[in-house]
Parts: sequence; structure tokens; C-alpha cells
Amino acid sequence: MKTILYPARENWEELCERPGIKKAYLESAIRDILYRVSKEKDEALRYYCEKFDGYVPGSFKVTEKELTEAEKKIPVELRDAIKTAADNIRKFHSSQLAEEPVIETMKGVRCWRKSKPVEKVGLYIPGGSAPLFSTLLMLGIPAKIAGCKTISVCTPAGRDGNVNPIILYTANYIGLKDVYRIGGPQAIGAMAYGTESIPRVYKIFGPGNQYVTMAKQLVQQEGIAIDMPAGPSEVLVVADKNANASFVASDLISQAEHGPDSQVLLLTDNKSIAERVIKEVEKQTAVLPRKELVEKSISNSSIIILRSLDECMDFSNMYAPEHLVLNTAKPETEARKVVNAGSVFLGPFSCESMGDYASGTNHTLPTNSFARNYSGVSTESFMKKITFQEVSEEGIRLLGPAVELMAEAEMLLGHRNAVSLRLKKLSDD
Amino acid sequence: MKTILYPARENWEELCERPGIKKAYLESAIRDILYRVSKEKDEALRYYCEKFDGYVPGSFKVTEKELTEAEKKIPVELRDAIKTAADNIRKFHSSQLAEEPVIETMKGVRCWRKSKPVEKVGLYIPGGSAPLFSTLLMLGIPAKIAGCKTISVCTPAGRDGNVNPIILYTANYIGLKDVYRIGGPQAIGAMAYGTESIPRVYKIFGPGNQYVTMAKQLVQQEGIAIDMPAGPSEVLVVADKNANASFVASDLISQAEHGPDSQVLLLTDNKSIAERVIKEVEKQTAVLPRKELVEKSISNSSIIILRSLDECMDFSNMYAPEHLVLNTAKPETEARKVVNAGSVFLGPFSCESMGDYASGTNHTLPTNSFARNYSGVSTESFMKKITFQEVSEEGIRLLGPAVELMAEAEMLLGHRNAVSLRLKKLSDD
Repeated sequence: MKTILYPARENWEELCERPGIKKAYLESAIRDILYRVSKEKDEALRYYCEKFDGYVPGSFKVTEKELTEAEKKIPVELRDAIKTAADNIRKFHSSQLAEEPVIETMKGVRCWRKSKPVEKVGLYIPGGSAPLFSTLLMLGIPAKIAGCKTISVCTPAGRDGNVNPIILYTANYIGLKDVYRIGGPQAIGAMAYGTESIPRVYKIFGPGNQYVTMAKQLVQQEGIAIDMPAGPSEVLVVADKNANASFVASDLISQAEHGPDSQVLLLTDNKSIAERVIKEVEKQTAVLPRKELVEKSISNSSIIILRSLDECMDFSNMYAPEHLVLNTAKPETEARKVVNAGSVFLGPFSCESMGDYASGTNHTLPTNSFARNYSGVSTESFMKKITFQEVSEEGIRLLGPAVELMAEAEMLLGHRNAVSLRLKKLSDD
Repeated sequence: MKTILYPARENWEELCERPGIKKAYLESAIRDILYRVSKEKDEALRYYCEKFDGYVPGSFKVTEKELTEAEKKIPVELRDAIKTAADNIRKFHSSQLAEEPVIETMKGVRCWRKSKPVEKVGLYIPGGSAPLFSTLLMLGIPAKIAGCKTISVCTPAGRDGNVNPIILYTANYIGLKDVYRIGGPQAIGAMAYGTESIPRVYKIFGPGNQYVTMAKQLVQQEGIAIDMPAGPSEVLVVADKNANASFVASDLISQAEHGPDSQVLLLTDNKSIAERVIKEVEKQTAVLPRKELVEKSISNSSIIILRSLDECMDFSNMYAPEHLVLNTAKPETEARKVVNAGSVFLGPFSCESMGDYASGTNHTLPTNSFARNYSGVSTESFMKKITFQEVSEEGIRLLGPAVELMAEAEMLLGHRNAVSLRLKKLSDD
């Protein structure tokens, strides 16, 4: 880890920069895949499964039997842990379903909003070395709470054609019955356009590699909504002299183990804690199985020493971290200063992994400084808000003349006329 | 208007299709403009102003004097109308600033959300024949309520270098001081990348022609958020036998006057109202100055006669209209069935123009069937939600073991370790 001592404010912006994500070269290849899926549907899916994964599933849809039998393969302790996490996620995400009042903006003019589910959504759960069942919890539970009718899950199978049983167990446990064994950009295409086997959806959620990310970006241009733009995961820890160095080190490492492009930053107003954290990181890394990976990510990460916790919060807001851990004596003071962050963890026992799995908050969060302009996933991500208005006779009498004047000033006489003939009718009656 | 009688359900999807928007040919030209603006900044802006608009503003920023002196050019009645509309919009959009409770998901685990403004936003207000000051109200007021720090307005000037005084008056009235006289895709580039004169923003709002729309779509791929994808404006009216045919006709016409690509649909369960509306449309159109334009749009529009109001609502939800006018005897019955729509107008006196200008709801709404997966603009569009969590010693004792198990199952041992060493510390103490 490199330590940067009291950088001048004019250099902060540079320190906040993330490594650029190269993508242009991918675009045309992914465009071809999407086009072919849109035209040839299942046949194209089979072609790309063969080409990229080396196997073609007999049927894309996971059977009811596979879903229900997965339970047997999961230790009861892990099932209980998943239940606990699901309960917390459900509790927090249910609280996001707020009813809003009717507002009488003026006499006879009533306005209100109602949230309605996005009827058809698709969840992409990456495969690879680890089964990301926690992401399935984070996307599937709010989708169910929102009331989405079609909730498709696409996830790659192994070479044997089987989807990881923890994924299947989790899907079944939270009530998702439509799981398809397919991954990669072709899965995004399948959900965007629909095929014989996989229904078209209106919004696609979930993480993925650069191919999946590019596919999501491209279908977004065609009107399919996506959860948010993607980038490597990141944590920013703010620690003061009271922080436990081993706790801080463990939080940095848990981010670093995501991969070599993970962004890890420690901000502190105290040189001694910086030194102690560096030693602790070495000590804790040494015993990890993913040691080399973590060492590589950590070598790209920085400790920045600033003059005060206020400066740390200013820097953090400029950086706009995905995860912000406030390991300070009075974290609520720093929390009040947060303007840009995905999710914030207060105090020594709120480590990032608690939120990653089970505290109840969502772990699908804006990275790459997108916390400046995007929210993390919530129940609202699976809904849209519709406005309603009801204008009474009295309302149009009061407000109609203003609308006539404004419509005329915008040279929209048809708009004016719609009001005028109603006002005339009322005065004639 | 063509009348379609009792179409079979399997043909509804086809009837809901919007004319395709051609765009591919634009992409590389707009990409070039954006690239040049990102590199050459103000110099590029001046180049494109000369090229596309035939004039180069001396200074892009509108002066304080121009802003304050615009008032003199606006009739007092129009100023009062703008004030009335602004008050209603402010009242409804202020109600969207809800505080959310802290949720204790389990003992010692507290989770909550806070909304924070997107710090820097840009509003694009098109120029052209009519000054769209109503759009400035619809975007500027919620931006102010949200608390955005930088609110830039870009709008093209006329050949004389002057911005329409109603735009300037409206900006000044709602407290927007940063108005730049520039339009087109180069304005979108200026807000996305920043230039010497115009600051970079994180989110861009507002309607525009196909060039502006493409520019917004392209900068979105680079992480700049945008309000929503764009398409031609549209209205769907549901009318029953009790509806006043002249009211219905006026609503269809007020949509049709937006331009030849406007989408206008009438659904009804009653043949007689359909016939009466057709006659009324002819009568009302005949006396409009934009007569030819309206006749052209109306000739592309349809009346669909279905067997019941329930069927009308099913069709409407499949169509997902931007504006939905419910001109029926008991509009609240139909309103309850709405799943996909941008904004809904209940009853004979809630004509679309009331919402376009002054009822209080926003008029920046999803078109082109995007009401299936997008909400209209609201105060929340100018904010993002940040989650917070605080786990106490008791909380981690209760929940930590579940997190350890789940992290291990995802093979993320660093994540597990962050919990384990905290639990160990607690049991050692």
C-alpha cells in the first residue's frame, strides 16, 4: 500500500480517478451476438453456449424437480443463515413500499402518485468459481416485494449442465420458479428480446463480466432499463486514532479479495493508525488462500493521510465510494456529512461483509463514482411511479385561465382550446 | 382517423407498436461532435454554433442583467399564470421529499436510507418556434427542491444572440442563475465534459430533437445519468358513452398539434361516441392555425372500439401511454386498473393540458412504451438514496455467524475473516 501524506486539495480530483475501463473493442462483437439472438432466438443461444461454454443445455429452463431437490445438498446451517439474511433483507426492503398522500395543490386540483411493479424483470447471476447466491437474495427479494409478475433468473450452468445447488436452493426458497441455465451476453440478449424458451423482460438487473456489462449497456439503448452502470467494486474506510487496526485491515482485505481491479482506500487523520494497518494487512493476508490475489490488489491501493476527519469526509464525497466504512469514535457525526456514497457502515462492528450479506441493505450499489448520480438497488428499482390528477369543475375554473395563457405563450393553441371549451361549457351550463 | 372495431387480443401487441425511430446513421456524427467538445471545449462549441446555428455568442453565459430585465417584457397576466403553475408544481414536488424511518432488521442491526441531491445537474430546454418555459418549470423546480448545488440551463439563442425572454424570466423567477445560450448536441457535450464556460454535471435532463437525444444516449454510456430515453409524445383517451365528444376531440387534437410523429389513440366501448368524436375533430381542427399539421397527425391516429371498459384498460396497460385520459363515468374505477402509464387524468375536466402546465404533476414523462419500465421526472430524479447501517456488538454476535457461513459458501474468506476477528475480539474481551 502506498501512503500519501497531506495531498493538496487541487490534487484530490486526480487521486479520486478510477482506472479507465476499456470497452470500445468489445462493442461490435457483443452487438453481433445480440443481433443474432434477436433474430435466431433459441438457436442462437445454443450456438453461443457451444462456442463460449463448450456445452449446450438440453433445456434452458431448470426443472421444478431440480429446484426443489437442491435443498438436500445444502447443509442445514447454511440454509438457516440464508433464512436469517433473507428475513433482514425482506424487512428493510418492505419498508420501502411507502404509500403517498393525495396533495390538493389548489382547490379542486388533486395530485398523487402510485407505485406499480415493472411487470417483467430479469436477474442475471454470474457463474464462475463462486455461486453468488447473495446477489440472488439482493435482487429476488425486492422483485417479489415489488410484485413483479415475471421474474426470470439467468445463470450459467457448469460443464455438466447443472446450476450450482445453492443458487437453485436460494431461488426456490425466495419463490423464484423461472431459472434458466444460460450466461454471458447471449443471456442478456435472450431477456431483452425474448426467445422460444426465455421470455422478454422490461428491466435487467445484476452484475457480470465486461461482456455482460456491454450487452446490458447496448440493450439499454433500445429501451430495456438496467439497474445501473457497472464498474469494479470498491471500499473507502475512514478511520481515526481510536480505530482497531486489525478491523480496518480486515475490511480492506475483504474488498481486495474481489479481484485485482478492486479499489481500496483508507483515509485517516492519524499517521500511527496508518502504520498499524499496513502491518495488520500483511499479517492477515499471509494466511489467506487467495493470498497472491489479495497482495496484488492491495499493492494498488492507497492510504491517504489528511489533516482532519472533516477533510476525510470532503475527500470521500469527491471520491463517491460504493462502500464507505466509518470506523471513527463518533461515526454518526461523519455519517451526517455523507453526500456521495452507495452504502455507509457506521462504527467498528458494521463491517462491509455484514451489508454484503445480511444486515438488510442492498449490496447492488453504484461503483466507479456513480454514487454521485445513481442510487443502489432498492424495492423502488423494481417499480415505477405513476402520477394521477383529478381536476374538478371548481379546479378548472380556478386554474384553467392560467393554463390558457401559458399554452398560448408556447403557441400550442390546441392545448389552450382543450381548456377553453371546457370553461365555455361550464359557463353555458 | 381510422376506426378499428373489436380487434382480437392476439393483434393488440401489433396495434401497440410505435413507429420505429431511425437513429443508427446519426450515431457517428454525434459521437464526433461530443469527442471534439470533450477535447477542444469552448472552441469546439463556437465552431458548432457557427456551423449549425450560423452565429457565435459573444459569451455563452446569460448575464444577470439579461435575467432580471426579462421580466419587463412579460405581460403581468402571464407572470401571474407562471406563478400559479410554479406554486402547484412546488407543492406537489415538495411532498415527494419523504423522510424514511430507521428499521431495526434484527436486534442490534439498524438500517436506513437518506436522500441526497445529485450535486450538479444540467437542464436542456429546446429552442425553435416556441419557448418551452413550462419544461423549465417542470425541471427547475424539483431540482431546487432537491437541493442540487449546480443547476445549469442550456438553451439555444436566436440569431440575434438573445434567449427568449419568457425562458429568462422563468429561470430567474424560480431562482436559476446559470443559463447558457447554447443548444444542440454540443450543449449536451458541454454539460457532460465541462468547458471553460460551462461546468460539467452528473445528470442531464430535458427534451430535444433527435440529435440532442442521441447525444444524451451516448454520454449516458460514459456514466452521465439522463432523465429517461426519449420518444414522440402520445396520449391515449379512454371514453365511455357519457363522455363529451367535444372534450375528447380537443384532447386528441392538443396531442396531435405537437407534430406529425405524435401518437394519438382513443379507446372506447361505444360506437356512437367514436362517430361523434370524429366529427368534432374535423370541426375543431378546421379553425386552428396549425390546421395542416394537426390534420396530418390525426390521419395517423386510431380509434379502437373494444367490448368493455375493462378491455380498454387491458389494452391501455399493454400500450403503456405517456398520457392517459380517463373520460368515463367513474374514472376512479379505471384508475385503479392502471399498471403502465406516465401520468393519468381522471374525469372530464382533467384535460392533458392541465397537467402539461399547472396541475402540479410533472410533464416530463416516459413515451414510446417506456412507461412499462420508467417513471416520469420527480423530485427523486434529482436525488439519489444512500443506505446506512449500524451493527452493535449485540448485532454482530447475533448476525455475524450467518455472515461467516454465507461468505465461506461464496469462497470469500476475507469477508468471513472481517466478521470472525470481530467476534473473537468480543469473546476475548
